[in-house]
Amino acid sequence: MKVLLDTMSGDAPPEEIIKGAVRALRETRDANLKITLVGKEELNREEVKKLEAQDLLSRISYLHAPNTISMEDTPTKAVRSNPDSSLVKGVTALKDESEIFISSGNTGAVVAAALFNLGRIQGVSRPGLAGVIPTVRSGNVVLIDIGATTDADPLNLAQFGIMGNAFAKNILSKSDPKVGLLNIGEERSKGNKLTKKTVSLIERTDLKYIGNVEPHLLITEPPADVVICEGFVGNILLKAFEGGVEGTIGFFKEALTSNLRSKLGGLILRPTLKELKEQLSYAQFGAVPLLGVRGVVFVAHGRSEARAIKNAILKAREASRWDLPGKIETEMERIDFND
Amino acid sequence: MKVLLDTMSGDAPPEEIIKGAVRALRETRDANLKITLVGKEELNREEVKKLEAQDLLSRISYLHAPNTISMEDTPTKAVRSNPDSSLVKGVTALKDESEIFISSGNTGAVVAAALFNLGRIQGVSRPGLAGVIPTVRSGNVVLIDIGATTDADPLNLAQFGIMGNAFAKNILSKSDPKVGLLNIGEERSKGNKLTKKTVSLIERTDLKYIGNVEPHLLITEPPADVVICEGFVGNILLKAFEGGVEGTIGFFKEALTSNLRSKLGGLILRPTLKELKEQLSYAQFGAVPLLGVRGVVFVAHGRSEARAIKNAILKAREASRWDLPGKIETEMERIDFND
Repeated sequence: MKVLLDTMSGDAPPEEIIKGAVRALRETRDANLKITLVGKEELNREEVKKLEAQDLLSRISYLHAPNTISMEDTPTKAVRSNPDSSLVKGVTALKDESEIFISSGNTGAVVAAALFNLGRIQGVSRPGLAGVIPTVRSGNVVLIDIGATTDADPLNLAQFGIMGNAFAKNILSKSDPKVGLLNIGEERSKGNKLTKKTVSLIERTDLKYIGNVEPHLLITEPPADVVICEGFVGNILLKAFEGGVEGTIGFFKEALTSNLRSKLGGLILRPTLKELKEQLSYAQFGAVPLLGVRGVVFVAHGRSEARAIKNAILKAREASRWDLPGKIETEMERIDFND
Repeated sequence: MKVLLDTMSGDAPPEEIIKGAVRALRETRDANLKITLVGKEELNREEVKKLEAQDLLSRISYLHAPNTISMEDTPTKAVRSNPDSSLVKGVTALKDESEIFISSGNTGAVVAAALFNLGRIQGVSRPGLAGVIPTVRSGNVVLIDIGATTDADPLNLAQFGIMGNAFAKNILSKSDPKVGLLNIGEERSKGNKLTKKTVSLIERTDLKYIGNVEPHLLITEPPADVVICEGFVGNILLKAFEGGVEGTIGFFKEALTSNLRSKLGGLILRPTLKELKEQLSYAQFGAVPLLGVRGVVFVAHGRSEARAIKNAILKAREASRWDLPGKIETEMERIDFND
């Protein structure tokens, strides 16, 4: 099982990404896990040396990619004009489903590179990124799409439902997942043109569709296992949720210094607070799979540092057993919207 | 100064709404504040009697409206077919800018009723709801639109910028407000079709435009005073933020029972936690103004109970001094996109 890791495209420097890779190798006993560092080979070799990872050398290899695609680049243009970038070279090098590509780079560019070099699964109109969101009590919820397809049409959304359902069923082991549509109200009359047109399409599938889901319920008491949305909206939701968490913890920390009583309480609760922050941090979840393309591609948060990369690798590792592209293809063949 | 208060359209029962009204009257010394309860007159009189508010009777009046528009109703249809609803009667009764209408009902219906009965300010293509979001350190940020115009075009968004700017300058007393565009990345290349097309329009105004703003920054360290977005997206953002806050407090409460140390800390911090929840609660902010219509209309959260209604009234009261419609008209006249 091989992970191709893009060391150059994230906000964090290569040394931080490579630190995550080395930690992942140390943490798992599975000697079959191998990592190929995709980026400037000499620089990457240098960083591995610095980390004193001699014992792991048989599990680390290098794929030289001298160029970088930046967060500022326009995705399609950058991918077409920069075949020697770590992002494009990594995707292109994927051989089969035992190999996984992970990048914390420009999401649009990862999507464009995957579409361009791997292609879509038969029947899929647009790929979707499946985010897994922690909830207070009832486990996880799959939110799809969180940024691969910023402008979606109703067919795209209905297919996100099918792909998200396959993911929840096969990977998160949810039997008979409930599927909902992200919306600004629970009533059927609520929403924008896109959500209103999507409903009739979803209702033509055999998904266990439960109707609209409001964003705050997603995190507190989600009525569905899979929630569908347009990529732009899903990405905004996720970042607003992050802001809500960070904001609350920030307010709380301020409050903890307001008087002696609070200071005492804060001191006692320091470990709990730290744990809380960990549990709700994006770094915990590592990376999210890009569903709908012919290969296993994970996108990590742009801000990912060593811990997030380590978690991304360990999670992506499981994905090689999933055959998710195969499972999505089977589902897509079963449901035909042109009926 | 008169507040017309819709007692029938929210999720909370009339008694709860009326309790909020009575509390608002008690809390302000301004005897000029008068409230007209819009709904079933007999029922509303009964509730006022129950609250033993005899001393306030000279400041409370009634406008009989026998019907209700529900959250399930399709806005335009409901407004046109139900002129005797509290929501429509309340908006229609507005005489001038010394009068303010507040409803915690179906947002779409409030917007439709305002457009239908008050009309738009000259030059405004679509109205926007201006939410005021608390931040950890730097005061408040105006987010417009949070749900009046679910499907917006670039001109609508640029005009939200102008109206939000007028609001921040005149009402929140921010001198020379910075205006940003809500987006999924800070880079210019990021976004969907709508945000990309909006940029060139905004750049033709004399707004102090600072570029894209990511949602999590809105709450932690906002780089702008006014942030523009489509109504569907703004509403999702706000509810996701709410979910993040509620989720974090929920996780925290669970953690506080995990062991003896945590329990002790939790006990000491109980007042701080309560204060935190208050500070971040929607109820704190009461209601938000609908900008772009010829009248002063506030929309309160559907879930508003007595405290939220009280705060909405006290805040809306200030609005009668603002002459916000007049100020927006002046700004709109100044900027012509057809130049």
